[in-house]
Amino acid sequence: MSQLDDLLRDLVVANRILSNEDVVDAYGHISVRHPDNPKHFFMSRSLAPELVQRNDLIEFDQAGEPVKDQRQPYLERFIHAAIFEARPDVTAVVHAHAEDTLPFGLIKTPLQPVIHSGSFIGGKVPVWDIRKKFGDTNLLVTNMAQGRDLAKSLGKGSVALMRGHGATVVGRSVRHSVFVSVYLEVGAKLQMQAMPMGEIKFLTPGEVDKIASRVSAYTLNRAWENWARRAGREMQPEA
Amino acid sequence: MSQLDDLLRDLVVANRILSNEDVVDAYGHISVRHPDNPKHFFMSRSLAPELVQRNDLIEFDQAGEPVKDQRQPYLERFIHAAIFEARPDVTAVVHAHAEDTLPFGLIKTPLQPVIHSGSFIGGKVPVWDIRKKFGDTNLLVTNMAQGRDLAKSLGKGSVALMRGHGATVVGRSVRHSVFVSVYLEVGAKLQMQAMPMGEIKFLTPGEVDKIASRVSAYTLNRAWENWARRAGREMQPEA
Amino acid sequence: MSQLDDLLRDLVVANRILSNEDVVDAYGHISVRHPDNPKHFFMSRSLAPELVQRNDLIEFDQAGEPVKDQRQPYLERFIHAAIFEARPDVTAVVHAHAEDTLPFGLIKTPLQPVIHSGSFIGGKVPVWDIRKKFGDTNLLVTNMAQGRDLAKSLGKGSVALMRGHGATVVGRSVRHSVFVSVYLEVGAKLQMQAMPMGEIKFLTPGEVDKIASRVSAYTLNRAWENWARRAGREMQPEA
Amino acid sequence: MSQLDDLLRDLVVANRILSNEDVVDAYGHISVRHPDNPKHFFMSRSLAPELVQRNDLIEFDQAGEPVKDQRQPYLERFIHAAIFEARPDVTAVVHAHAEDTLPFGLIKTPLQPVIHSGSFIGGKVPVWDIRKKFGDTNLLVTNMAQGRDLAKSLGKGSVALMRGHGATVVGRSVRHSVFVSVYLEVGAKLQMQAMPMGEIKFLTPGEVDKIASRVSAYTLNRAWENWARRAGREMQPEA
Repeated sequence: MSQLDDLLRDLVVANRILSNEDVVDAYGHISVRHPDNPKHFFMSRSLAPELVQRNDLIEFDQAGEPVKDQRQPYLERFIHAAIFEARPDVTAVVHAHAEDTLPFGLIKTPLQPVIHSGSFIGGKVPVWDIRKKFGDTNLLVTNMAQGRDLAKSLGKGSVALMRGHGATVVGRSVRHSVFVSVYLEVGAKLQMQAMPMGEIKFLTPGEVDKIASRVSAYTLNRAWENWARRAGREMQPEA
Repeated sequence: MSQLDDLLRDLVVANRILSNEDVVDAYGHISVRHPDNPKHFFMSRSLAPELVQRNDLIEFDQAGEPVKDQRQPYLERFIHAAIFEARPDVTAVVHAHAEDTLPFGLIKTPLQPVIHSGSFIGGKVPVWDIRKKFGDTNLLVTNMAQGRDLAKSLGKGSVALMRGHGATVVGRSVRHSVFVSVYLEVGAKLQMQAMPMGEIKFLTPGEVDKIASRVSAYTLNRAWENWARRAGREMQPEA
Repeated sequence: MSQLDDLLRDLVVANRILSNEDVVDAYGHISVRHPDNPKHFFMSRSLAPELVQRNDLIEFDQAGEPVKDQRQPYLERFIHAAIFEARPDVTAVVHAHAEDTLPFGLIKTPLQPVIHSGSFIGGKVPVWDIRKKFGDTNLLVTNMAQGRDLAKSLGKGSVALMRGHGATVVGRSVRHSVFVSVYLEVGAKLQMQAMPMGEIKFLTPGEVDKIASRVSAYTLNRAWENWARRAGREMQPEA
Repeated sequence: MSQLDDLLRDLVVANRILSNEDVVDAYGHISVRHPDNPKHFFMSRSLAPELVQRNDLIEFDQAGEPVKDQRQPYLERFIHAAIFEARPDVTAVVHAHAEDTLPFGLIKTPLQPVIHSGSFIGGKVPVWDIRKKFGDTNLLVTNMAQGRDLAKSLGKGSVALMRGHGATVVGRSVRHSVFVSVYLEVGAKLQMQAMPMGEIKFLTPGEVDKIASRVSAYTLNRAWENWARRAGREMQPEA
């Protein structure tokens, strides 16, 4: 099979994993950059991630619009378009409303890495507040201007929380972005549990750097294999 | 099939969804206004929601009494009768004891919208205390006077918490009331998690208005489809 | 079938329900008084509750010893023997280590009824500390003297917490004791969630009395039916 | 079957149990000392514990290196090698990242026994911080020097928490180490829940001693039987 086939198969499995691991519910989405046309990307038509199959995937252009496809796209596809535009190093984008990260989008204390597996979020995670620039909205990212403002808040990082809404995670591959998304949740839960019990020893920048700079395909695949199986999908070689 | 058939099929599915999504346990109920006789409504006979089937549904009159049916009704059917009486704009009513909302019925800090999907609860959610007007009771709404007092506390809103008891949610359709009920839980959990960690940035009234006034059948159906499937029911076109 | 057969069938189902609803794990037990010989009672041989079948049930005498049965009994059978001795009004006894009640056995703030369904615990729940009378032990109730001391702490109530160990619940029937045990958990969790958020409005003694004095077989059976089905058991008429 | 066969069968079942009881996720591992060659030990090749089967087990030497096996070993096998070296009394070692223990690796308040079943952790559980001796690392134990430093922090105890990483548990048998690992979680969760509600009455050293010194194969087997069945494995006589 071609690289594209492998990539899209991974994208389908990623939808199932994100749903099964409770990163997304009926909403939330994951996209992957087109390997042959880096200004375009693939993402499901508007559908609960748990239901996504290969033929639900749509190609989108750099403006976040479907390429020759009349089916209903996700309203918030501009999150993906704007991040692929701003970050050439990014291959996959996850937008989710996972419950344990959401409290950190409501308060002043930032989310920070507390464990090895949660260190891929980098340092203190920024919280993007759509209201600063756009006033009262429905909180959703419904055009490129909003998407670009979010991308600016994300900066060179791998995660941006969105006040009253959710989180956006980027990765160097579909599997990497899923890995960061799942352990973002684990780390958020731990920080939340530890905070009422005393002062927290966060990971040092040196530790974060040593872990994040060395994550191997081997490590990512071990988790992917396990999650894919739990979600009822056979393991396949990585795209 | 007629509109009534579709509506009652939705009501059965709603019972399964509310149970499967842990909004109700063995208790709790959901009703829908009779489309052809707006003073009447339909609700299951007294039964755990997870078990409700089409032939368990009973028609009730405006006094909350079963119409030509000898089977045992829910004790608290007056919640539904009184709200349908006071609120012509309401099509469906959910009464539940979902765990994450209950703490907010015990304390002074009000439940408020903290996330996009939880904004349908409006603003600060009122807590109805049966004791104020009726003194020591068994806390249940067992007659029309109590139901009307609850409806007064609900006012024009979509949710009223009930001290030491549960919550009542109203919606413009079965699917809408289920949607509000599920995300009421999500928002309550988030507010509960965020409160010990610092001051919370709640949604502004302007944001709440922009979201709640625009919720589309499309949005509701996406969640419904996913929940129905999880609860083992095939998706059907909306009633 | 005879009353005894019905009763023992209920006892088997109760074991499954307590396990499936996470009131017990591999440990914990439930007993029922012998209907024809009120000094004796029935309980499983030592076995994880989820595995208990009809032929695992053993008859015990008033000293907590098996009647003509060589199989290994639960170490803590004296909890049951001592309570049946002290409380002629009690028909069933549950001993469990359910997780949400345990924190209240470690601190000074008492567990109290906060919701309708949790009101069967009465008022402030006593915490029995085996250490007061017996010094350093392995915390288990391994003889009649310890069981009687626990029964004294229970008094006329329906629940006693046991410091660093678990809880013991009594009921007027198997189904009643299971009902109180499950909702003891729900109430404990709610109180635990509400405490960090502000002062709690507990149920008044008048409310508790109105609810607890009127619980009907109908109410108990609705929950039982649901729990039995979830635990994979068909519903049967009550013993 | 030989003792070795029984032991390795238990090791496979232990992997399933640890996964099913949420002590491990895709990472984490359990080892057992070679009964005939006490300097060696057995552990799975690098694989999510839920997937481990008999032929995935590898024999390791005292340096933590696979004996005549080319398959990829766990990166952190030195945890096991160093502990088997330092502690001749230890037969099995579990390394996990179970979520409820992790907060206690981040704060100053120590984890301590609060319940009977959690007393096997001994007293205040030490927190090993790899940074003290090795500076900024990726937090993982990737050589014998780090493993020996961890073993020193463990001392004569049965549990050491690892800051920002996880926990290591030792036992006198596979079943014992699994038992301690599961109830380590339960106790951690309870202490975490009780801490915001007031001062905790921990178990006294005398109580801990009375419980831990008397744990019987019978007790361990009752839990093992239940967990094995839940994880889909038939109960077998202990190795």
